[in-house]
Amino acid sequence: MRILILGGDGYLGWPTAMYFSRKGHEVMVADSLAKRHWEHEEGIMPLWPIPPLHARVRHWRELTGKEIQHRIGDIALNPRFVYQLLDEFKPDAIVHYAEQPSAPFSMISREKAVLTQQNNVVGTLNLLFAIKSRCPNAHLVKLGTMGEYGTPNIDIEEGFITITHNGRTDTLPFPKQPASFYHLSKVHDSHNIMFTCKVWELRATDLNQGVVYGIETDETRMNPDLLRTSFHYDAVFGTALNRFCVQAALGLPLTVYGGGHQRRGFLNIRDTIQCVDLAILTPAKTGEYRVFNQFTEVFSIIELAEKVKRAGEGLGLAVKIEHIENPRMELDQHYYNPKHTALPGLGLKPRLLTDEIVTGMLQTIHESKMHIDTELVQPRVKWRAE
Amino acid sequence: MRILILGGDGYLGWPTAMYFSRKGHEVMVADSLAKRHWEHEEGIMPLWPIPPLHARVRHWRELTGKEIQHRIGDIALNPRFVYQLLDEFKPDAIVHYAEQPSAPFSMISREKAVLTQQNNVVGTLNLLFAIKSRCPNAHLVKLGTMGEYGTPNIDIEEGFITITHNGRTDTLPFPKQPASFYHLSKVHDSHNIMFTCKVWELRATDLNQGVVYGIETDETRMNPDLLRTSFHYDAVFGTALNRFCVQAALGLPLTVYGGGHQRRGFLNIRDTIQCVDLAILTPAKTGEYRVFNQFTEVFSIIELAEKVKRAGEGLGLAVKIEHIENPRMELDQHYYNPKHTALPGLGLKPRLLTDEIVTGMLQTIHESKMHIDTELVQPRVKWRAE
Repeated sequence: MRILILGGDGYLGWPTAMYFSRKGHEVMVADSLAKRHWEHEEGIMPLWPIPPLHARVRHWRELTGKEIQHRIGDIALNPRFVYQLLDEFKPDAIVHYAEQPSAPFSMISREKAVLTQQNNVVGTLNLLFAIKSRCPNAHLVKLGTMGEYGTPNIDIEEGFITITHNGRTDTLPFPKQPASFYHLSKVHDSHNIMFTCKVWELRATDLNQGVVYGIETDETRMNPDLLRTSFHYDAVFGTALNRFCVQAALGLPLTVYGGGHQRRGFLNIRDTIQCVDLAILTPAKTGEYRVFNQFTEVFSIIELAEKVKRAGEGLGLAVKIEHIENPRMELDQHYYNPKHTALPGLGLKPRLLTDEIVTGMLQTIHESKMHIDTELVQPRVKWRAE
Repeated sequence: MRILILGGDGYLGWPTAMYFSRKGHEVMVADSLAKRHWEHEEGIMPLWPIPPLHARVRHWRELTGKEIQHRIGDIALNPRFVYQLLDEFKPDAIVHYAEQPSAPFSMISREKAVLTQQNNVVGTLNLLFAIKSRCPNAHLVKLGTMGEYGTPNIDIEEGFITITHNGRTDTLPFPKQPASFYHLSKVHDSHNIMFTCKVWELRATDLNQGVVYGIETDETRMNPDLLRTSFHYDAVFGTALNRFCVQAALGLPLTVYGGGHQRRGFLNIRDTIQCVDLAILTPAKTGEYRVFNQFTEVFSIIELAEKVKRAGEGLGLAVKIEHIENPRMELDQHYYNPKHTALPGLGLKPRLLTDEIVTGMLQTIHESKMHIDTELVQPRVKWRAE
């Protein structure tokens, strides 16, 4: 199969590219490299240095003999680039990670909020028009987020909900309550994609993904120095578990936002790739817009912190948990029961967050603790107006 | 009260400005004049020529002695312009019409789709950030559209719906099924505004407006030649009733899209202004995001055509109804029962679509029929992929 991966230089994009290349697919990655630029603007570095994309695909070729084609360009700023990609590569499936991925980043300022929505929404619009024009039968696999739903007081279904109201019934898009300009951008995308599947008969899978954690995949392990993916522990691009592991490795208190009872869906980076693979193996039908909730377990933030504390203590680290003022605006105590049966139905075998996995992450991070910039861990973006 | 009207050069914006000025409020209008440019790009003219905004406010001053301040600038492309407007004028209420208003326009091409979403979404984002920074207590009155809801098979509530699901209950945003890139842009706006009311405690009223018809208001009638508002009958910016009246006046068949059983909410342009006034008189509370469904009657398109036929025949015109292929993608037969009790609850006195009103529109248009460009009436934008 011919698989185009947009955002192929990112935390998820690069491991996804190697995975499909190793499986024998034809893979092309495209990336604007904007994320690396945004990191520099905020003074942020991943824990380990990441070679340029050109070098990554060269290392991959030298190690495996397999070619990952790569193109540099911006799908939001340069629509011609998208059309040319599709013309040239003629993909069967397009995995679309090419979005600004951080909620705190989107809340820094007006500029960053507009950048986030413009980059994500216009990039996806350009892609949809290009697919319509160049490869209307290609299957779009788009990364959304569980954060699109917010935390309603009812069970969260996968994309759609059947509502009976005043004696009549319809199945409608699940109501969305996104809680940052980033999460809003994903909701905008979802509506735009749903519409184009309907009017142009495109086919798309929207993966509403939980919070991803993890450092490695089978492919990055083949040569971590050359093939690793970017690992962020900072308060802007890092996710909760990754950040807690870094804090524990340094002997810093784990900074839990508020009471820490906020509950979220989580998954291992290896399962992200497994889910994308499953979506591609059983594609959406012509004209179908389907939504899968992509996570394997639900934890509260405090449960996550306690897991890290336990694993850290097992390694002889002194780990404290500190509750700090929540910079976000979210409910601390809330109902949370999101369904996630579609991907297991396609064969997903979850890799759950065992103590061994946390211990392994802690050990890997501990070995590199001299590289950690502790300045980056504290939140500096507040949701509320001053 | 100090009332800022964004999009104050438009079909609704200009009559709204005169209305509030006449009532004794301090009024400032701002406009990018982009809509006049888009009309030229598509070769479209309103039925009667419209003086430049500078001349309109001068005519108003000469006629009434009242000053409507005016500023030219683009709230989407130039965020500083928005901040400066609020700094200078310090509005109590902001009426936000400054959006690309046409569904067919948004469906012309990729460029127009991106322009529509960028203009509308980024303009509104810039405005929200400027309000937060400069006048967080100002009341935002934003024009949305009934088209945000689509045509679900259940009753449409005003913005929010209480859902009981698996034994639990929550009140959530009403699920949206917008059917053009324009309607999608309004849904994106709604989500963005709802979020900022929550995190920044802004106050906003989202007026989900039906299809507006009408040529005149009390203020345009004071001197139609100098004060009239732009009347569009073309297939891009014109709405159904306005277009039918033009066709009847010329002896052309009324072009009904498909079977014409699509049902929509309608209102007189005078009632648009009345609704905006009512929203301003009883503003949203601090932190409140409220949605009013703003229309006075529901008609099917064929009912509307038959009204025009009857009125035309009363004037001795031979009027035929022609069913043409629907360029849009919408259900011909569907349930449609949108609630609209909030605005009547605030005191709205509807001006219903009587035969006299249709006859009056027809007469006015008939007198100017030599100015009509019949090329502009036929649809030229298709929703489906070729």
